[in-house]
Amino acid sequence: MRDHAAARERVRAVLDAVRSAGRTALTAAEAESVAAAYGIPTPPQALATDAEEAVLRAEEIGWPVALKVVSPDVVHKTEAGGVRTGLTGPDQLREGYAALLDSVSSHVPGARIEGVQVQRMVTAGQEVLVGAATDPTFGKIIAFGLGGVLVEALGDLTFRLAPASWDEARSMLDSVRAAEVLRGVRGAPPADRDALTGLLVRVSHLAADFPELTEIDLNPVFAAPDGVVAADVRLLLGEPEESERPRHSTEEILASMRRLMEPRAVVVIGASNEPGKIGNSVMRNLVDGGFAGEIHPVNPKADQVLDRKAYPTVGDVPGEVDVAVFAIPAPLVPAALAEAGRKGVPNAVLIPSGFAETGEHALQAEVVAIARQHGIRLLGPNIYGYYAPWQNLCATFCTPYDVRGGVALTSQSGGIGMAVLGFARATGTGVSAIVGLGNKSDLDEDDLLTWFAQDEHTRCVAMHLEDLKDGRAFVSAARETVRKKPVVVLKAGRTAAGSRAAGSHTGALAGDDAVYDDVLRQAGVIRAPGLNEMLEYARALPVLPTPQGENVVVITGAGGSGVLLSDALVDNGLSLMEIPEDLDAAFRAFIPPFGAAGNPVDITGGEPPSTYEATIRLGLDDPRIHALVLGYWHTIVTPPMVFAELTARVVADARARGIDKPVVASLAGDTEVEEACGYLFDHGVVAYPYTTEKPVAVLGAKYRWARAAGLLPGRP
Amino acid sequence: MRDHAAARERVRAVLDAVRSAGRTALTAAEAESVAAAYGIPTPPQALATDAEEAVLRAEEIGWPVALKVVSPDVVHKTEAGGVRTGLTGPDQLREGYAALLDSVSSHVPGARIEGVQVQRMVTAGQEVLVGAATDPTFGKIIAFGLGGVLVEALGDLTFRLAPASWDEARSMLDSVRAAEVLRGVRGAPPADRDALTGLLVRVSHLAADFPELTEIDLNPVFAAPDGVVAADVRLLLGEPEESERPRHSTEEILASMRRLMEPRAVVVIGASNEPGKIGNSVMRNLVDGGFAGEIHPVNPKADQVLDRKAYPTVGDVPGEVDVAVFAIPAPLVPAALAEAGRKGVPNAVLIPSGFAETGEHALQAEVVAIARQHGIRLLGPNIYGYYAPWQNLCATFCTPYDVRGGVALTSQSGGIGMAVLGFARATGTGVSAIVGLGNKSDLDEDDLLTWFAQDEHTRCVAMHLEDLKDGRAFVSAARETVRKKPVVVLKAGRTAAGSRAAGSHTGALAGDDAVYDDVLRQAGVIRAPGLNEMLEYARALPVLPTPQGENVVVITGAGGSGVLLSDALVDNGLSLMEIPEDLDAAFRAFIPPFGAAGNPVDITGGEPPSTYEATIRLGLDDPRIHALVLGYWHTIVTPPMVFAELTARVVADARARGIDKPVVASLAGDTEVEEACGYLFDHGVVAYPYTTEKPVAVLGAKYRWARAAGLLPGRP
Repeated sequence: MRDHAAARERVRAVLDAVRSAGRTALTAAEAESVAAAYGIPTPPQALATDAEEAVLRAEEIGWPVALKVVSPDVVHKTEAGGVRTGLTGPDQLREGYAALLDSVSSHVPGARIEGVQVQRMVTAGQEVLVGAATDPTFGKIIAFGLGGVLVEALGDLTFRLAPASWDEARSMLDSVRAAEVLRGVRGAPPADRDALTGLLVRVSHLAADFPELTEIDLNPVFAAPDGVVAADVRLLLGEPEESERPRHSTEEILASMRRLMEPRAVVVIGASNEPGKIGNSVMRNLVDGGFAGEIHPVNPKADQVLDRKAYPTVGDVPGEVDVAVFAIPAPLVPAALAEAGRKGVPNAVLIPSGFAETGEHALQAEVVAIARQHGIRLLGPNIYGYYAPWQNLCATFCTPYDVRGGVALTSQSGGIGMAVLGFARATGTGVSAIVGLGNKSDLDEDDLLTWFAQDEHTRCVAMHLEDLKDGRAFVSAARETVRKKPVVVLKAGRTAAGSRAAGSHTGALAGDDAVYDDVLRQAGVIRAPGLNEMLEYARALPVLPTPQGENVVVITGAGGSGVLLSDALVDNGLSLMEIPEDLDAAFRAFIPPFGAAGNPVDITGGEPPSTYEATIRLGLDDPRIHALVLGYWHTIVTPPMVFAELTARVVADARARGIDKPVVASLAGDTEVEEACGYLFDHGVVAYPYTTEKPVAVLGAKYRWARAAGLLPGRP
Repeated sequence: MRDHAAARERVRAVLDAVRSAGRTALTAAEAESVAAAYGIPTPPQALATDAEEAVLRAEEIGWPVALKVVSPDVVHKTEAGGVRTGLTGPDQLREGYAALLDSVSSHVPGARIEGVQVQRMVTAGQEVLVGAATDPTFGKIIAFGLGGVLVEALGDLTFRLAPASWDEARSMLDSVRAAEVLRGVRGAPPADRDALTGLLVRVSHLAADFPELTEIDLNPVFAAPDGVVAADVRLLLGEPEESERPRHSTEEILASMRRLMEPRAVVVIGASNEPGKIGNSVMRNLVDGGFAGEIHPVNPKADQVLDRKAYPTVGDVPGEVDVAVFAIPAPLVPAALAEAGRKGVPNAVLIPSGFAETGEHALQAEVVAIARQHGIRLLGPNIYGYYAPWQNLCATFCTPYDVRGGVALTSQSGGIGMAVLGFARATGTGVSAIVGLGNKSDLDEDDLLTWFAQDEHTRCVAMHLEDLKDGRAFVSAARETVRKKPVVVLKAGRTAAGSRAAGSHTGALAGDDAVYDDVLRQAGVIRAPGLNEMLEYARALPVLPTPQGENVVVITGAGGSGVLLSDALVDNGLSLMEIPEDLDAAFRAFIPPFGAAGNPVDITGGEPPSTYEATIRLGLDDPRIHALVLGYWHTIVTPPMVFAELTARVVADARARGIDKPVVASLAGDTEVEEACGYLFDHGVVAYPYTTEKPVAVLGAKYRWARAAGLLPGRP
């Protein structure tokens, strides 16, 4: 593939020929020529039209050989008996050739047989499979897995977006569970990793260059120590899917998003004086929230709403309007939206339900068409609205929220949005935005990511989503964002049952969630396993500084916590640092002789505050240590708040000296540990009571982000 | 194996012969005869002492054959070139025979060669491996897995205690991840499951009958549609491990446990008036806790402790004493313990540390010896003590706890014990006992289980443990207990790092945790993945009634929660019921036309209390539904406490009518949902805010127990 353009031309010619012959399946010879164009190694092979020619070809190619029928009428060659393998000499070949023809003509009567492909048998190396497919969310993806029925039964496959870079393709080799087999087990030689990586890259380009290749299936590929060979190449032609989704430039997105998230004038269409009405709640929240810009009620039947002059239509509102919040029944939305469009309002927040989610697809399509016509961006419909605490903006019918901070939270579902709000309030989580996405008729996660990526208030983005309208756009926005700040995603509908509940048509595809999982990881997103984890990661990640290396040390007053914390570290992909001798001696100097240094550093339970203090300080000061996990045990000698205060002080002191490492803590004790955890959180230490898993899971999430953002160069 | 005794005798004779020959490895012929005695099918085979005899034997047995050297001096036959396979005729055999002899004599010069085993080659069927080994915790275990390097690389093995019952052996076939391969994939015929099960049972008996068989390795076994054949049987003799652990009868355990958990008289050795001393805290907790029995301080230097007469030694205390709590330094324990022994005290609670955990193994051994001599049972040392709220007994130096209820909690570590206490207090969990086990010098989990199984106050047992002193005794006690009430176990040291932190020597064994995992499941124990889950299961399981079937229905006001709840159901091994048409229609009658019946039943977000009420009532009343999962969404129309009260009322009403199904709820909303969850918990509905995972995880744990206890006959 030195000359990519020439390769494309060659393949284009082959595919055009197949298409003009009215076929969808490529013959072995056609597939071979496509493979050759893209540098995909295949075994030596040649076409023969009778048995004697096949013997000649086999003598040239080298024994043993396989025979495969070439016929436009035979799609499933093996099932039709059109494949013979392991032929070691002329006689066997002649017998096989005859049997093959018999078998094919009895299975597919009247099949036109153009000949038989004679192919050198490959058996050396580990069987793997390489493929490409079109995912409904992400488009062209490549798949890799080890071969053999057992591993296929385990579904041990990994996926990446096509085209894939060298590094992305390389990472696939280690992403299957049976990865060590490629490194050589039981004395078997390791596979040629460079050759395999190159093959994956080339297949990914083939898939990306020719969207109409709906199926690319190299199975088996033999990965030997000295190269790879695709023993069977199956290619199918179909119709490339056309996306009719409009794309906006980053500048366009930011221009409208800025007016949505930092508006100067907001109108509420359907503003009402009547308590219990959504139009009343929204007005009240906007006014009570302290939004400093203009707030104009629109209501043709009222002169005033909440002591503000009401206008009959949005067109009557004086001056520029940045956001129109709709609090009117769904059927009334189109007319009002057109009015807003004529007024030049760039953003419509569609709170009402009664659109696609209730089967009213036509109404939603009408609204989308009106919006496009006028260049309005739509948030919703079917949402609770949105919060922008830094603007004192509560454009929602829910309860107000005003704790400013660094977390931007979005949810596709209103119920989950309420859980986000309740959790944020219960934990005092500082928020930069809470946004409902609902039906995502227009604005979706990638627009929001584009905004949050450059929003200085936002230090972490957490998103609940059930589907993605445009997986590629999301990945692209996520990649940009992840360079600057962590993105946490809770993907609902992971399981088939969940997918059905989400009404997702893609849910029926086996492996669908595996694709999401791999692609989200490829994009550098931290996937939360559940709602509570998403919320905790969102709350805690901005509290932690970014680690500068992989060496994690556990310092614990409770040996029992040390064991559970060690388990949690392994579960979360973290590394218990191997403590060098001098550091071990330094820790030992502070702890009782029967305490255990090493890692965890077990300072034992009866120790005074000074022991916690000395060991934590040492852990912060030693530059070889990159993160601390603390296990506290409630005792009379060192009560919870004493521990919390000393820890906060030592951490603050280190930060003042320019040492900023992530510190998380698990507090085991009576209920006073809850207050201590709150104090620690407020002072930059992520701390939880009654759990050894949560603090480590948060640290693990921070590490996953740091690695994905390229901030930990030691690890990919 | 129709005559088990005869089989044992035959094997005994073979093993005796091997041992008297000074060998540890059995020859092929010996292994074959052991296999034959236990009905383990092996391929037709015979011994030959020269090539021509081998040809004759092969003609009788049938081609193709394999040759295996028979030599007391060759342990690793393959490595020595002592195996030749795939010999299809006389000439090949003769060549192979000669090559084999050459190879063996060059690899093991001077090896005594008794002949060559001629064995019919087996290749039909799926390769599996069957083995038995001695686990340091559980003793004899059998292992099963599919064969092949890939699956072995994945560590896809499953374990059971030996001997295994038919059902236990059968369950192994479905416990490997690649289980479907045995059912036949890609057109391959299914394996003979009965034959395979029978083989597992017989191997498990062989392992159990002959503890000195330290290794039994049948690899590969070919599992074909019409039977199984063990192509290679490798047996190794070693020394059976002798357990010197004293066993107590159930009656003995209950007699001493009753006096420990329901004592009439308690002494505190080392009781003190000095605040801050452990002996002072223990006395104060006992007195303040309101224990109604006698409490006697023992202190040679005081006349009174906390206004009670103090005695110089325990021997001076009048009357019978049930429990002596030790609050004195470790070195003083032996003398005081001997004194207690002479007094006839049956239970010593050893709070002090300074024993094995700090390297003072000799001191601990001395204490154990004194206890055995006097028939005293020991709790500890190195513990916080124990709580028995139903006796108002706080025999601990920690903070008191008095919320009576159904949960018995034990922990090996003091730090975890404090987390247990804090969690219980924070959540108001009703407790029947909290017990520290520490170094487990004597009393351990199986003694406690034996007590809790018959303790009428205890409805659920939750145990944190780092190791088991006697895995078999634990399994036996757990099985008995599980029939009556759930047992939750948090096994710390799951990972190699965690194991190292636990200082567990068994941790070095690969697969160690896999054995724990399988055996705990075999015992019917619910394994908690982490500390917080253990605590939540313990709190919630007694609240839920036992489900009567597998049909779970989700009723949700938030579609988004429905999706996440469905995911969680699948994750926890629960079944979303397929709703029959009439039931679907019945649900639809209550919900808006655009709501979704099916399962989840999505009643939609804006509905009044009456919709929640009607659908929940229907879910309780329809006998085809066995459990309900509720997803609540905070709205003005149905505020959190309104939902909580109506749900509690509907559930109570159903219970009054004899309908008692488990109901769990996930509440999404603002912080008022926390109060609503508390209210629901108090009224028998397990409810959590801001999480869709936790309520379903608890329900899943209840189901796992109900299945293990045989209360859900539809599922094993």
